Amino acid sequence: MTSSSADPARVHLYDTTLRDGLGMEGLSLSVEDKIAIARRLDDIGVEYIEGGYPGSNPKDAEFFDRMRETPLRHAKLVAFGSTRRAGGDAATDPALTAVLAAGTPAVTLVGKASAAQVRDVLETTEEENLAMITDSVRLLVEQGREVIFDAEHFFDGFAADPQYSLATLRAAAGAGASAVALCDTNGGSMPEDVVRGVQEAARVVDRDIGIHVHNDADLAVANTLLAVQAGATQVQACLNGWGERCGNANIISVIANLQLKLGIDVVTDEQLERLTELSHFASELANLAPNPQQPYVGASAFAHKAGLHVAAITKSAGSYTHVDPAAVGNTERVLVSELSGRRNIVAKLDEQDAGLSLSDAEASALADDVKDREARGFQYESAEASFELLARRSLDGYVAPFGLEDFLIVERRRPTEVEDETEMQAEAMVKVRVGETLSQTAADGNGPVSALDAAVRRALLESFPDLDRVHLVDYKVRIINPDGGADAAVRVLIESSDGVHLWRTVGASTDVVEASWLALQDAYEYWIMRWGGI
Amino acid sequence: MTSSSADPARVHLYDTTLRDGLGMEGLSLSVEDKIAIARRLDDIGVEYIEGGYPGSNPKDAEFFDRMRETPLRHAKLVAFGSTRRAGGDAATDPALTAVLAAGTPAVTLVGKASAAQVRDVLETTEEENLAMITDSVRLLVEQGREVIFDAEHFFDGFAADPQYSLATLRAAAGAGASAVALCDTNGGSMPEDVVRGVQEAARVVDRDIGIHVHNDADLAVANTLLAVQAGATQVQACLNGWGERCGNANIISVIANLQLKLGIDVVTDEQLERLTELSHFASELANLAPNPQQPYVGASAFAHKAGLHVAAITKSAGSYTHVDPAAVGNTERVLVSELSGRRNIVAKLDEQDAGLSLSDAEASALADDVKDREARGFQYESAEASFELLARRSLDGYVAPFGLEDFLIVERRRPTEVEDETEMQAEAMVKVRVGETLSQTAADGNGPVSALDAAVRRALLESFPDLDRVHLVDYKVRIINPDGGADAAVRVLIESSDGVHLWRTVGASTDVVEASWLALQDAYEYWIMRWGGI
Repeated sequence: MTSSSADPARVHLYDTTLRDGLGMEGLSLSVEDKIAIARRLDDIGVEYIEGGYPGSNPKDAEFFDRMRETPLRHAKLVAFGSTRRAGGDAATDPALTAVLAAGTPAVTLVGKASAAQVRDVLETTEEENLAMITDSVRLLVEQGREVIFDAEHFFDGFAADPQYSLATLRAAAGAGASAVALCDTNGGSMPEDVVRGVQEAARVVDRDIGIHVHNDADLAVANTLLAVQAGATQVQACLNGWGERCGNANIISVIANLQLKLGIDVVTDEQLERLTELSHFASELANLAPNPQQPYVGASAFAHKAGLHVAAITKSAGSYTHVDPAAVGNTERVLVSELSGRRNIVAKLDEQDAGLSLSDAEASALADDVKDREARGFQYESAEASFELLARRSLDGYVAPFGLEDFLIVERRRPTEVEDETEMQAEAMVKVRVGETLSQTAADGNGPVSALDAAVRRALLESFPDLDRVHLVDYKVRIINPDGGADAAVRVLIESSDGVHLWRTVGASTDVVEASWLALQDAYEYWIMRWGGI
Repeated sequence: MTSSSADPARVHLYDTTLRDGLGMEGLSLSVEDKIAIARRLDDIGVEYIEGGYPGSNPKDAEFFDRMRETPLRHAKLVAFGSTRRAGGDAATDPALTAVLAAGTPAVTLVGKASAAQVRDVLETTEEENLAMITDSVRLLVEQGREVIFDAEHFFDGFAADPQYSLATLRAAAGAGASAVALCDTNGGSMPEDVVRGVQEAARVVDRDIGIHVHNDADLAVANTLLAVQAGATQVQACLNGWGERCGNANIISVIANLQLKLGIDVVTDEQLERLTELSHFASELANLAPNPQQPYVGASAFAHKAGLHVAAITKSAGSYTHVDPAAVGNTERVLVSELSGRRNIVAKLDEQDAGLSLSDAEASALADDVKDREARGFQYESAEASFELLARRSLDGYVAPFGLEDFLIVERRRPTEVEDETEMQAEAMVKVRVGETLSQTAADGNGPVSALDAAVRRALLESFPDLDRVHLVDYKVRIINPDGGADAAVRVLIESSDGVHLWRTVGASTDVVEASWLALQDAYEYWIMRWGGI
């Protein structure tokens, strides 16, 4: 829509989800989660992936160790650290040692770019801070690292004492940094201040200029784009706008805007089409509810409610959408029409290659059933396997491969010999029917769901020995109507794998054990039906 | 921070939550809700409050009837309608009749400001559309109304055919409109396009220029501010950024930025201090979870997690906040997590008014304990009550108000008389000690956790009858290391309330029942310790 003067070849995507993004309240990722996200970012075409702060956090050091075993395919992994201590020696500085030990091709070093912060927080001299930057950058460059200098508090510092802030950039560039990233650390800078700061920085250092902004004034994405238009050539941002306080710039919005609005190709068209999937994947991994209003990728981002708008779309496609939703892997939705419900059902089954053909009446009945069950707490959008089973069960002639006739679970906690220590014990007894055979089994487990699962598996393995390969990958529980207290419905989402395939199922009930069982039942039934050879 | 050339006296706040905001998926407000919100907007100093579309929605007509009984104290109530039908007569147009019947001092009339939309959607001529605007505005002005012309699709129209879009503004101004609001209806315009459009509009019409933008490109707040700096004198926006698709510009962020960043006083300092309360009030009324990351007013907006940041704040207040949180009625918070050190621990306990003073050694030991427990699945940053209990328990002399000695839970599912239907039954037996008293109780429940909770409450109520007021507000479960399958740890986060206070607790275990119990135990223990009067 708008052309830019920036050279497209020179805008580099830099993701800091796994470091700065983790500053978000309530967000915590395991090492496995971080590895999974790094791989997805690599796939989507991000050029730099900042993985953590090995000097401050042992979990991050483990992440870098693990990443060495299976390197990224395209992206450069980046370790984050800070400049040496005031009055210290770079060569023996523990944080710099840790960042080198991470063994990444690139390192981002944060240093103060504000005279006031040097004085009040570092409690050292302006000269010493410049020496800290120079020594630290030089040490890493000499060790063969590509070094990005993160100019903390740059814009606030620039507003108060521009010459000193620019001097920190010159120090980093002079010591061999390949890029200087200008940080709006407090997230309160106005667009005009960001533009002015970027222009000045670009005037004094002949390096890539990065832009790293926070969203405290609700301006992070705009400030990032305006910085690029003013000459920034590296954009630092986080998945879904995660980050401390109000978050960092949202890399999803930044990528879509650079590509579709400013005409700067930062990823391929195919990668762009995976943005919606990437955003939802990250939310699920973090057990955060995706924001339906999220620009480009939210479930509501292309949804129309007003009757007037729906009528206009019928006459002129794109009347109320700013881009083609398919370009970012999203879809246009009309929120009220009965017809669109039925069409969606058919389209979804086609999309899943279910090989089912439903009549109009059958599809309508299924649409009603979905609506009814979603009102009770089920949610099929992220549980395609349960949705397909619901469709199959709605047709005549479907025979379930097994049935759980009844179960009994006993769980107890009691004190042990050791003072203040207790032990838990859970046991389940089940009756499972497969064809004409009724098996009665029992098993222990870690808690009621685990015991029930173990007992059912024991029964099913007699008929389906390959079920042994099926295991739980993820298990999530969410309460649906929190105001209902004890009577609130509970939704369980399960992700299962047999080492080759991955599928998701859902269960809902007022009882967490029953909800879990419904999701487990679907998980096994789906696998048996698809790959279990019956 | 930045001064603007706009005349402060000339920026008018216009809220469209009760009309355009209601386009949001999942948002629905009763007439009573709408009245309550209108009163709050009036109190906070909004000048125009758009109440609805009486020609299209009978509920909105009722709202205007009700508002006549108890008028607003300061703000002007606005009814929304559209220009007359193509080929019709303004005097007898049903939509215009309805908008007049609402009896408001001001009316906003939407009309097409894009030649392409006139042709493709209205299916009429450019001349007829201009006549529709002129006739409709004139009719309402003659009836004594202040008329604002809502120029739909203005920016997209202006990009394709600027002369026609400007002609629609001239038509409205010529017929007596007091303001023309430029709409970025599809929400996809870039800042430079918004600035250019506003500047051109201000050049050709001598009226207030309004700005009305959507957030589809994640730029709504920035585009609104830049429009004001380019000459717009009326800002249209919605509470919390509600609205169709990705929402409208967020009026909370807009007000705070205008006042604190651009130095344009749109409300008094006292009104500004009520922004946080207003935002949460609206979310609660709409039964939407408030966004913790929301700029200025979110619970996380001034929360610090990184140990480095906490250390800096201690030395220099405001090191990581862009404005004083109190200015918008929010507060600074320190989060405790594995990322944090001894300083966070001490700062956090101070902030919580726990009245505990820990020695350096005790604080270090507690920090280690937090790190160790977080590695096992606990997470304290969003469970301040459990954190405080952990601190208390680490000190000599703490006596827990009660103890769960042991429990037994039995749960069964079995077929009922009705084919394919089953019933669940859960029962718990517990032994609870309060001081010297040991109570043995039993209770049924919806599932194992609910039964356990009911039995424990029954025992505790004997000693703490006021515990009756304590109830569960939210309950969340997530698995911590999903690849661990059945042995994975489970984290339970609980939010509890007694109608006055709200507190959060955490539990973790390989067993969901035990994890739930640990969180419940903390919830009750915290309430008893703080407010239970022992």
